[in-house]
Amino acid sequence: MSERSNKQIRLAKRPVGEVQHSDFKFTESALPELGENGILLQNLFIALDPALRNWMDDFDGSYIPPVQLGAVMSAVCLSRVIESKNPDFPVGTIVRGLAGWEQYTIAGADGSRQVPGLEIVQVEEGIPLSYYLSICGVTGLTSYFGMLRVGQPRAGDTVVISGAAGAVGSVAGQIAKRHVDCRVVGIAGSAEKCRWLTEELGFDAAINYRETNEMASALRDACPEGIDVFFDNVGGETLDAALLNLAMGARVIMCGTISNYNNDVDDRAGPENMWQLLVKNARIEGFTVAYYGAEWAQTTAVLSQMVKAGELKHREQIVEGLDNTIDAFRGLFVGANQGRLMIKLAE
Amino acid sequence: MSERSNKQIRLAKRPVGEVQHSDFKFTESALPELGENGILLQNLFIALDPALRNWMDDFDGSYIPPVQLGAVMSAVCLSRVIESKNPDFPVGTIVRGLAGWEQYTIAGADGSRQVPGLEIVQVEEGIPLSYYLSICGVTGLTSYFGMLRVGQPRAGDTVVISGAAGAVGSVAGQIAKRHVDCRVVGIAGSAEKCRWLTEELGFDAAINYRETNEMASALRDACPEGIDVFFDNVGGETLDAALLNLAMGARVIMCGTISNYNNDVDDRAGPENMWQLLVKNARIEGFTVAYYGAEWAQTTAVLSQMVKAGELKHREQIVEGLDNTIDAFRGLFVGANQGRLMIKLAE
Repeated sequence: MSERSNKQIRLAKRPVGEVQHSDFKFTESALPELGENGILLQNLFIALDPALRNWMDDFDGSYIPPVQLGAVMSAVCLSRVIESKNPDFPVGTIVRGLAGWEQYTIAGADGSRQVPGLEIVQVEEGIPLSYYLSICGVTGLTSYFGMLRVGQPRAGDTVVISGAAGAVGSVAGQIAKRHVDCRVVGIAGSAEKCRWLTEELGFDAAINYRETNEMASALRDACPEGIDVFFDNVGGETLDAALLNLAMGARVIMCGTISNYNNDVDDRAGPENMWQLLVKNARIEGFTVAYYGAEWAQTTAVLSQMVKAGELKHREQIVEGLDNTIDAFRGLFVGANQGRLMIKLAE
Repeated sequence: MSERSNKQIRLAKRPVGEVQHSDFKFTESALPELGENGILLQNLFIALDPALRNWMDDFDGSYIPPVQLGAVMSAVCLSRVIESKNPDFPVGTIVRGLAGWEQYTIAGADGSRQVPGLEIVQVEEGIPLSYYLSICGVTGLTSYFGMLRVGQPRAGDTVVISGAAGAVGSVAGQIAKRHVDCRVVGIAGSAEKCRWLTEELGFDAAINYRETNEMASALRDACPEGIDVFFDNVGGETLDAALLNLAMGARVIMCGTISNYNNDVDDRAGPENMWQLLVKNARIEGFTVAYYGAEWAQTTAVLSQMVKAGELKHREQIVEGLDNTIDAFRGLFVGANQGRLMIKLAE
């Protein structure tokens, strides 16, 4: 199959601040022959997460090693096995793993790349393939473990979610509502997103941060008895405003801090109001979904059931073609996307 | 008893940064007659905590209302009831509560001050009175609940304590060692303090921060497998260094942040490395000892037993006379004290 050529996006330099096209280069080359145990993956969907921005920095204290200069940019992909010398991954299998911004990925021994976490996806009838990168995939699992395990909401709690119209926030809110019977307030960046949260997803209230001068007082109005659980995808000023409104014993779930991913690692001031944790006997707890790896399969089944039963709604924004990857990724940081952002490469 | 005069220290202005003598004024006046249900307390010991600095600021988001300008500065005191119209507090009783920087406090109805949390202390034989403001009082309780309830150490965990030679830190370390069998590392500000921690209190190691250029690497050397529990009395750069060395699933106990108590409330940047919470599935949890009020009596008994059995050692620094209160308080912020700082007013 060496006549098949592979288009790839490589990290050309370390971005400073916002990602630029010039930070990457496109390459195209013939695919090598498969080595022993090798698997050739055709990437169908590439998931674009804000967290990828961190992997572009040369900092080894993160949960993923930094992408090396000149290497293909890493990303979780949904792929089809189209050639295989590994009996565990027969041709035709749908798999998920940390592949990259490229059409094809060769996984296996013999000089080819490792694909961390490569796993076979059990595709269920009635669940579109893309869902395995979104609500039945990493974002759904992130919502689930973050809200239930880290946040530990109790019935009647007031739960606030930043980035609430995003892939993780929107599902986290529905889980707090359906699984635990909480009062759920979302923070999002447009009237349309807010309407979607309250009218379609069943959030109790939504705050449009673009129309709010003073987030702390907006939260005080929306949560007169304080915030019991704050599911934070944003960090920065939003977190600071939430800290001023914690209820006694509150739990802050640190899922992401998109507001400072474009800042240098040495320039990420923590929240000024962190001492409110002391006043309120509260906590901030971070997590990565990988921590709960042993429970992914069984939780994916739970999420699939909820989706089929119509209990979980979500949005996907699917952009076609590898060439649009960088622009789509940049859009994440200005809230241009509506729901889970993916690049579609093939049927 | 109106011929008895009462010397008091009142808050004259809101301190900016470090506390100055000019922020206070001394007054002396005759004690009024006791009203209905009134109690006259002779204050024996005044506890001086770094946290008092926060009560001097005009900020109502704390756990204690700010001291009003012109009012007597608040502090937890150990006192003797010397006159009483309240049968619940007979003359001669030893009590503890939020009295103030003054020789006498009148508690009760009829225009006199409230003394929040006023409680009778059951003085045990073999326990000096001052201990009820230190190891068998608020600092001991703070160490106990902070370490065990918030930190949740497990046998074999690596526990690091900042401000380790202080009243709270020194006891917290011994509790982690004796109650839970942890490996305990203290951070303190002199060779003598470090020696005390390792040789007298049984800490496994101690770091002298005044002789350490790079706290993050000093912690890495002292804790090669990472920090499971960080009991933080300091905040600021010390916290940032600890965050870079957390083990997976670590718990940071936010007991105090003395490093920024002299900063304005609006100028207390949180830790830059807070995102390490996410990488390490870790948390920062704040607490105040008041949260555990229902368990104080029974826990004080536990602490008293440990003290009598020689299992808990501590230091007290007792300064004589109300006139020395301000200087003694200032010394807290430069580490001048050795152990629990108290002002002694009477036998």
